[in-house]
Amino acid sequence: MPLDDFRITSGKDFQLANFDPGSKPMSGENKQADLARITQLSTELDAEQDIFYAEHRRKLLVVLQGMDTSGKDGTVRSVFRSFDPLGIRVVGFKSPSPEELARDYLWRVHLQVPKSGEIVVFNRSHYEDVLITRVHDWIDAAECERRFRQIRDFESMLTETGTTIVKCFLHISKDEQKARLEARLADPQKHWKFDATDLAERKHWKAYMDAYEAAITATSTQECPWYIVPADSKTHRNLMVAEIMAHVFARLKPAYPPPRPELEKLKVD
Amino acid sequence: MPLDDFRITSGKDFQLANFDPGSKPMSGENKQADLARITQLSTELDAEQDIFYAEHRRKLLVVLQGMDTSGKDGTVRSVFRSFDPLGIRVVGFKSPSPEELARDYLWRVHLQVPKSGEIVVFNRSHYEDVLITRVHDWIDAAECERRFRQIRDFESMLTETGTTIVKCFLHISKDEQKARLEARLADPQKHWKFDATDLAERKHWKAYMDAYEAAITATSTQECPWYIVPADSKTHRNLMVAEIMAHVFARLKPAYPPPRPELEKLKVD
Repeated sequence: MPLDDFRITSGKDFQLANFDPGSKPMSGENKQADLARITQLSTELDAEQDIFYAEHRRKLLVVLQGMDTSGKDGTVRSVFRSFDPLGIRVVGFKSPSPEELARDYLWRVHLQVPKSGEIVVFNRSHYEDVLITRVHDWIDAAECERRFRQIRDFESMLTETGTTIVKCFLHISKDEQKARLEARLADPQKHWKFDATDLAERKHWKAYMDAYEAAITATSTQECPWYIVPADSKTHRNLMVAEIMAHVFARLKPAYPPPRPELEKLKVD
Repeated sequence: MPLDDFRITSGKDFQLANFDPGSKPMSGENKQADLARITQLSTELDAEQDIFYAEHRRKLLVVLQGMDTSGKDGTVRSVFRSFDPLGIRVVGFKSPSPEELARDYLWRVHLQVPKSGEIVVFNRSHYEDVLITRVHDWIDAAECERRFRQIRDFESMLTETGTTIVKCFLHISKDEQKARLEARLADPQKHWKFDATDLAERKHWKAYMDAYEAAITATSTQECPWYIVPADSKTHRNLMVAEIMAHVFARLKPAYPPPRPELEKLKVD
């Protein structure tokens, strides 16, 4: 299955350069076929989520990371929009507040982990604490290594206590980001999405790619893998994240809790 | 507009007995027409929500209350499912935890109020603290009156600081609840939803209706009205809540933030 090639379960030999942001490995014949497949997956995922919620036993955490304009919001809107709001929660992590900075960097993240039956999507995450912080040298290499270990330990604890963690790197090219930023600037209705610091961060593109490569290398495990999602095409990106979710549910096999035969004798007055 | 007759903006002369749970005041010719109207409203609401989120200025709080099986979960699923998960959050309030009980009853509620651009749906709410508590005499009449005042003050503060509050009482009849409980008991796949305490609470039906009437009378204001939603018909209930949301958005008139002309001169390198 081609999805396997994009699931990073070990840092051994991982190189981001081996993945082309413009490729469409999950795509079928044409865009129409892809959109039809997304619709089909959407129906299946909705049904699986309902059962996962009813099961009320395990937890699912989806981490979305990627450069500005890589489509984190768009992925939420496309793949997770039709999920039952009772069982899904999206958490965006922005620059930490003074309250948050006064604790360790995992504190605010731990507060937001999913509960039984819940799916939580992190729109950015604790990985920012080894990405933007490293690119700007706010932390040195030794501290970054310490954090990689702390993150592995944290995710491992979450996994051992019943959480499935799915990490997606939405991989776009520098050229595609240029086109998307220009489109935002050209459309007054999209100005609210524009943050001038995006332009500043863009100048550090190479450093970001290195930081992502290092983070993915250090934190990809059999149980908490990273998926590299070629994302220059929005349709492909949505399709691939939907396929990943379908794969995850196929492995989790959500099931309704067993019937309670004692209920069948109850009378409603 | 008939919706006005179901919006309680003052406790004066309010009597729950004037509202028939089996009526369908918002319905059209037949069920097909109602479902078509729900689909149409859904498309409109989705668009309004996207703009409300982009606007990122005001907050919207929807309170769903009703007896067991009145359809709080179903309303979320039907009316709010297609909203962008980035901008909607559902909060269920169950029996308070020891941590919560160690604070005032509004503490856990305040923690969950919506932020700018966000819509939060309360699946049960602080109103339980004047309903189940009153029915079982865990609080006396004087304490209940104090809480009514505290709730009015709390909601008034939220309103003055930018939150629109919409309170919906999903009004079902005792017979309809019987039918729904029996359906749950008869369907093993629905056993997970069944809570034996529901049967116990059902015995206090009249006391609950009195408590709802008192709470709605005491906390209906021009700015934080209650809506009485006849809910024996699920289709009518979904339709009416969707109509209420459409009415609220029509009043709020969400708008994209103004364009920022300075952006048009920016260059992306």
